[in-house]
Amino acid sequence: MKHFLLAASALPALAIAAPAQKDVAYDIVEGLTTEVGQRLAGTEAEARARDWAVVKLKALGFSNVRVETYDMPVWVRGVETAEIMSPYPQKLIVTALGNSGSTGPAGLTLPVIGFESLDALKAADPAVVKGKIVFVSHAMKAAQDGSSYGPSGQARRAGPSIASKMGAAAIVIRSIGTDMSRAPHTGVQMWADGAKPIPAGALSVSDAENLQRMLARGKPVTMKLVLTPQNIGPQQSGNVIAEVPGTDPAAGLVLIGGHLDSWDLGTGAVDDAAGVAITAAAAKAILDSGKKPRRTIRVVWWGAEEVGGNGGDDYVKRHQAEPHALAAESDFGADRIWRLDVKLPDNAKALGDRLGAALAPLGINKSKQVAQGGADVETLIAAGVPGIDLQQDGTRYFDLHHTPEDTLDKIDPLQLQQNVAAWTIMLEHVANAPEDLMSGQAAKP
Amino acid sequence: MKHFLLAASALPALAIAAPAQKDVAYDIVEGLTTEVGQRLAGTEAEARARDWAVVKLKALGFSNVRVETYDMPVWVRGVETAEIMSPYPQKLIVTALGNSGSTGPAGLTLPVIGFESLDALKAADPAVVKGKIVFVSHAMKAAQDGSSYGPSGQARRAGPSIASKMGAAAIVIRSIGTDMSRAPHTGVQMWADGAKPIPAGALSVSDAENLQRMLARGKPVTMKLVLTPQNIGPQQSGNVIAEVPGTDPAAGLVLIGGHLDSWDLGTGAVDDAAGVAITAAAAKAILDSGKKPRRTIRVVWWGAEEVGGNGGDDYVKRHQAEPHALAAESDFGADRIWRLDVKLPDNAKALGDRLGAALAPLGINKSKQVAQGGADVETLIAAGVPGIDLQQDGTRYFDLHHTPEDTLDKIDPLQLQQNVAAWTIMLEHVANAPEDLMSGQAAKP
Repeated sequence: MKHFLLAASALPALAIAAPAQKDVAYDIVEGLTTEVGQRLAGTEAEARARDWAVVKLKALGFSNVRVETYDMPVWVRGVETAEIMSPYPQKLIVTALGNSGSTGPAGLTLPVIGFESLDALKAADPAVVKGKIVFVSHAMKAAQDGSSYGPSGQARRAGPSIASKMGAAAIVIRSIGTDMSRAPHTGVQMWADGAKPIPAGALSVSDAENLQRMLARGKPVTMKLVLTPQNIGPQQSGNVIAEVPGTDPAAGLVLIGGHLDSWDLGTGAVDDAAGVAITAAAAKAILDSGKKPRRTIRVVWWGAEEVGGNGGDDYVKRHQAEPHALAAESDFGADRIWRLDVKLPDNAKALGDRLGAALAPLGINKSKQVAQGGADVETLIAAGVPGIDLQQDGTRYFDLHHTPEDTLDKIDPLQLQQNVAAWTIMLEHVANAPEDLMSGQAAKP
Repeated sequence: MKHFLLAASALPALAIAAPAQKDVAYDIVEGLTTEVGQRLAGTEAEARARDWAVVKLKALGFSNVRVETYDMPVWVRGVETAEIMSPYPQKLIVTALGNSGSTGPAGLTLPVIGFESLDALKAADPAVVKGKIVFVSHAMKAAQDGSSYGPSGQARRAGPSIASKMGAAAIVIRSIGTDMSRAPHTGVQMWADGAKPIPAGALSVSDAENLQRMLARGKPVTMKLVLTPQNIGPQQSGNVIAEVPGTDPAAGLVLIGGHLDSWDLGTGAVDDAAGVAITAAAAKAILDSGKKPRRTIRVVWWGAEEVGGNGGDDYVKRHQAEPHALAAESDFGADRIWRLDVKLPDNAKALGDRLGAALAPLGINKSKQVAQGGADVETLIAAGVPGIDLQQDGTRYFDLHHTPEDTLDKIDPLQLQQNVAAWTIMLEHVANAPEDLMSGQAAKP
């Protein structure tokens, strides 16, 4: 962190003390994970998180702190057990994937048929899959930019629907994760048109490898799978909004944030208490600098990102007509930012260059990639709102992602600080940029 | 491993190929963890492990392969959940300690009273403990020699009895572990005279730190604890024995081994499939060398070490009258051996020196510590049987110990090989030593 401290002191415009930065962001992560815990969208826990957020954001001095609610369908986890009945009786650790069907409390005791990839499953004769528990064991490799999540995650996103359409009774996948542990990775999947919900779970990576070894021995393997999740119908979720007012309403809003909801197995520290904390701490640094920014900074802590992006959708519906000069989200953990991607109008190219120069001392390189935004802002950016992605090091992100291990102790306070410093520099530049950031925007989404 | 390979090739007496060593030991760990899984003493799983062991040891070519059974009281795990009800509702991860009492299926919902150490609990006024759930949060530090387990483990071994005698309704301790994860560490505890069994569990280290943060906020904390273990009465356990016959029965037996039983949360890879594998692989190397050893090598895979040492006790009862020239156990994981401790009669001092010289090229230093043996052989050694401890690096052992994470993937095949090489060298020297190794033995235990 020596690098970062030198860099911060070399930027006189940013009179922000490192300890204060640490306190605000770390305190938010610590508070949310300790006082609220998991925050599954649409549950009473997410509602408690919104109450907590309003109190915290007001205490930090933000303006216009408010909650915008919406209703959404909610799925909740039940009992989840998996056990090999023969030929090697033992319990495995499983968790249900989002929107999984239920086995009923008695469970399903059926033969397992294994596939090394989703493609191998697709290529199989449906007759050999029918009535069985499908097991897809495709492994995921770690990547700093998280680029393996797209292809590897298909086993979770598409696997259940494919198995269902082929007549499988249930599916268990190897967790979409890069760890070697017994913590299973949940995550959302949506049933494709015509796919009847079936029980769909993820084995921990360690258990998946054990099951692969069993299958490799060639004897028929029978599993008892119990997953009893339920759809509990429409429930209330919501976004929490806070602002640092600017001096020039015509210059547009700078929209930043992260998502307040989390999966239900851990306490959602890296996904995404870190993101709400980093963005709020950076906005707080601007607030505390004593100099009002040109543009209003709007911090949004979105609800329901994990289970379908309902919070992001609701924000777009309500606010798309407002002028947005930027949209940016922090939702890839709390490890250090290493890359800057921008999507700026042609007349604001110089802003991109100034940002690149200002962030370089923090070890952040400007890339030629086009910013796309996190899930809650990607619709706005696709529709023409300028975007900036401060890309975090994701090497260990998928060790923890959607598992019971996503807890406060996985947050590195020094790397969290570097994130806040980078976001603060970004806000300082973008909120005060003299350029017209809305010149290139087409019709609103 | 370059170091090890050089060392092995520098010892022409040991015509043992490294790959074969790897295969035997790794295959035993792989087989036990995949085909049997957890092996809680006195359960059908431990019985399956004995059957597996007999088949395996016979297939490896050992002589006199047999099982010696005994009956023992058995305690089995039930439901185990912990939930903070107020002021920060969320689920925690807990596991019952051995011989824990039951909360009953409805659980106990009671205030939590926290203590930073066992001494702080002992010093407390019983009136403030009475009827509450005691929480002891003493932390454990990692040590290569495992020396922190003795003092830190007291919270588990003695904490439940102390809390019970003070009138506590239940106790949860911070797991006796050096990891920072959500995998709780179980382990045995015995009720002291006059201590009525109460529910006794361990929170994962991550959850314990979360609870500490909650308590530090100063509001009363209420927990709902459900632990429903049961005592299922006497069941059969047993030791599996195999031998490499020697040429000189009068020279005494060389007794080596590990324990076949495991805790029930993981698959008992490092504790102690590794130990049975290392010792059997080393004995197999002697068997395959084509040269009969002077002394018979007896390999024992003890039962029921974890829950009270019933297998070790049964072995002593049956076999203490036989001449033992050595007793040695491998029961501290699968990481590399770094230290040699011996306890040899005065006339065999030179053997200790020869061993020290032979093991030095593997990075093993002869210490001045007196060998004490693992739990299954310590009675014999205390009674005068010579002992050798090949001390393993325990730095990460207590990250995994007694947790769901004790699985095959935690075994480093290269370090496992180093263990087999060291044990093979030790057997070669001890089984063939010209010295009388029983000269110093007092009356049998």
